[in-house]
Amino acid sequence: MEFLTLSVGYVAAFCSTFGLLPLALRVWRTGEVNQIPIGMVTVMFIGALLWLLYGIFRVDQVIIGANAISLLFIGYVSVVKLRSIIK
Amino acid sequence: MEFLTLSVGYVAAFCSTFGLLPLALRVWRTGEVNQIPIGMVTVMFIGALLWLLYGIFRVDQVIIGANAISLLFIGYVSVVKLRSIIK
Repeated sequence: MEFLTLSVGYVAAFCSTFGLLPLALRVWRTGEVNQIPIGMVTVMFIGALLWLLYGIFRVDQVIIGANAISLLFIGYVSVVKLRSIIK
Repeated sequence: MEFLTLSVGYVAAFCSTFGLLPLALRVWRTGEVNQIPIGMVTVMFIGALLWLLYGIFRVDQVIIGANAISLLFIGYVSVVKLRSIIK
């Protein structure tokens, strides 16, 4: 049962994390962030950070893994977005 | 500690779920789904479904709640997207 649970969890984590990859890649290639609302980026960043914290509290490797990687992608988009605002 | 864990979890759930609301609302208002890639919708739908299953396996109310609501929003967008393709 634990194997099934972890398998479902990791496929779920893969989907929700790599669903963000096209967005991060487009920002990487084009540097274009005007179409991405600052509110959305902020909420997603706080969300991934708190999910990571929740995973640490629950000692849940699936939640920790998924959100650590999500945070990298969203963090990158956030930095580019912030720099575009400050400029 | 359990109260802190649940609080962090519920704020995380709120962020990741209601981060999807603007997308669902825009589709609701405009019926416009051309800009949303079918691959993204599919991956997000499968992701939310599997996270919900993972939450049920783990008997984790935060994961269940967050993904049940996410699934409603993504499910709605998926239905509109599918209908726009079939038409």
